[in-house]
Amino acid sequence: MSWGLDNLPYGVFSPQGERPRVGVRYGDKVLDLAAALHDEVFAAPTLNPFMARGHTAWRDTRALIQNKLTSDLTVTEPHLIPLDRVRLHMPFEVADYVDFYCSLEHASNLGRIFRPDAEPLLPNWRHLPVGYHGRAGTVVPSGTPVSRPHGQLGAGVFGPTAKLDIEAELGFVVGVPSEQGSAAGAFEEHVFGVTLVNDWSARDIQGWEYVPLGPFLGKSFATSISPWITPLEALPRVPGRAQDPAPLDYLRRRDDWGLDVTLEVSINGEVVSRPPYRGMYWTPDQMLAHLTVNGASLRTGDLFASGTVSGEQREERGSLIELTWNGTDPIKLTNGDTRTFLKNGDTVTIRATAGEVSLGEVSGTIG
Amino acid sequence: MSWGLDNLPYGVFSPQGERPRVGVRYGDKVLDLAAALHDEVFAAPTLNPFMARGHTAWRDTRALIQNKLTSDLTVTEPHLIPLDRVRLHMPFEVADYVDFYCSLEHASNLGRIFRPDAEPLLPNWRHLPVGYHGRAGTVVPSGTPVSRPHGQLGAGVFGPTAKLDIEAELGFVVGVPSEQGSAAGAFEEHVFGVTLVNDWSARDIQGWEYVPLGPFLGKSFATSISPWITPLEALPRVPGRAQDPAPLDYLRRRDDWGLDVTLEVSINGEVVSRPPYRGMYWTPDQMLAHLTVNGASLRTGDLFASGTVSGEQREERGSLIELTWNGTDPIKLTNGDTRTFLKNGDTVTIRATAGEVSLGEVSGTIG
Repeated sequence: MSWGLDNLPYGVFSPQGERPRVGVRYGDKVLDLAAALHDEVFAAPTLNPFMARGHTAWRDTRALIQNKLTSDLTVTEPHLIPLDRVRLHMPFEVADYVDFYCSLEHASNLGRIFRPDAEPLLPNWRHLPVGYHGRAGTVVPSGTPVSRPHGQLGAGVFGPTAKLDIEAELGFVVGVPSEQGSAAGAFEEHVFGVTLVNDWSARDIQGWEYVPLGPFLGKSFATSISPWITPLEALPRVPGRAQDPAPLDYLRRRDDWGLDVTLEVSINGEVVSRPPYRGMYWTPDQMLAHLTVNGASLRTGDLFASGTVSGEQREERGSLIELTWNGTDPIKLTNGDTRTFLKNGDTVTIRATAGEVSLGEVSGTIG
Repeated sequence: MSWGLDNLPYGVFSPQGERPRVGVRYGDKVLDLAAALHDEVFAAPTLNPFMARGHTAWRDTRALIQNKLTSDLTVTEPHLIPLDRVRLHMPFEVADYVDFYCSLEHASNLGRIFRPDAEPLLPNWRHLPVGYHGRAGTVVPSGTPVSRPHGQLGAGVFGPTAKLDIEAELGFVVGVPSEQGSAAGAFEEHVFGVTLVNDWSARDIQGWEYVPLGPFLGKSFATSISPWITPLEALPRVPGRAQDPAPLDYLRRRDDWGLDVTLEVSINGEVVSRPPYRGMYWTPDQMLAHLTVNGASLRTGDLFASGTVSGEQREERGSLIELTWNGTDPIKLTNGDTRTFLKNGDTVTIRATAGEVSLGEVSGTIG
């Protein structure tokens, strides 16, 4: 069955009229963990207290749940609630949100689009995972409608964005904090799991505002995440992509943290792209090492995302600006429609799988 | 007396061995508000619950405190605790932290330093208050030591920053949230008060990393704020500086939100600069209008800062990169020392006053 014992992502759910609490998805049901495990940490309306417990607790809890769903199943069954009878909520409280720029193909495509006569990659790109802080307060769960943002589109020009775009990403959720003044420890000691991210982007607002301090209002109106947080343990790991030049020591890979995850982007139900995460240039362990090398602390609930996942092929690009080459080459949908950027009423859904493991989906409709 | 009835900033304090709670500074004492006003909102270890109550409550509470400190003084006196018997804490929990770039002189000076042969201001600068998100989790209260950050200083070069700098700023603290999808309402309905900000900056790290997504590790290691939050009501307001071109309608000034505040920057006790806030090009109401025009929501505890306050004169510049022209023209201290950027052991203190009203100080020592 899908969503089986090897998957078991965590989320926050509420049956009608009841308080939100932590559950684990199993098949088409959600296991009510506070009731099944007699542990009050799961009665919280957010994953943060459980995530703060750390790596050993995460591993032991997962093993205990697998046990409850097999040998103890008759005892556990009353605590399995059909998904169609619950509502899903924000799975965790976001502390700081950082977005990286880890795909060589994405960075190169944007370079070619915006600086056609220059080297596509900027001089720092192969030396460090470029990143910036996004707005934590506007990270919303899948299903939240997204209002088309207004803003400055150029000198003296104000209006709704005409270039509303998506960015298909993986996001990494921090469980265990680190101290200010020191670099963080090993990746698996801090990072709890993975969510899907749609980093909605208004390209015209972004293009006008971003020099010299980076993206701001072109991104801060909304960022959507999937409701199920997949534990790292559930994901097949692969070696990271070769890097040239060799990274500095603090960015050296000490373990395989490439992830064999394939994303799938749909517009109004039609698949337009299948970005492969395994080809990303900078791996998640390198993002974490970079994020904290200056002594910046981590907090429980920090979210750091990969940046747009794009592969080498056109049908592997994770944003519309790449898929349509900044609107010059529209996508043709099977119903005869075309798209450059998003229209009002469009629904974008990003799904992802890693072999048999599903990461679920993040979806949003432009209102 | 200084710190009199017209001042009355809020903070979080704890007498030895007792729990942190909210107080108001009066002279050299702090008024224990939970005890004096019999209101549990002040028993919280943070200003956030009180700030969330809104503008009418802020005004009424201030009037009540003024009354307790005059006509009811004999009843109130037992709740006034000498400052030398308390510890001061982070005054509020930071939700999102945004930093702007509102000083024409600061932006022009950096343009001249980094692009000597080009127009100092970038094309968007006079059209919108340029800003970006900083790291909320590393905002620390005055007195917290600041570790010199390590990082990439250029291609293949790693080490401690050789260009550790300050930025003297005013920060604005949001009390009342706004809805995602709509612009915020009037400035005074949302903004509770003002704090002093030292946005510590590693110029070499920043210079290498910041293209194209803006400052990241060059800033995220620490941002210090002052412990006393001055209510807006205490600050003398003046018209904002003339703007050319006239801003778009959403940025139009509807009221005077220029603030007649003078900052004072000291290194190891010696004043090196007195930046005047009243000359800032973009006023705080314009920052708030810009921040939310795309529908980004506000949360209680959001902090947005002005960016470096620099005036027209050399002795009015709010950062060392400007005061020393990127290290080429060192500051001479009276003890014979010189400074380009900060040395280990240096203490930087930023104070500010607005007429008789003191905003206190934010201080930090490089460790």
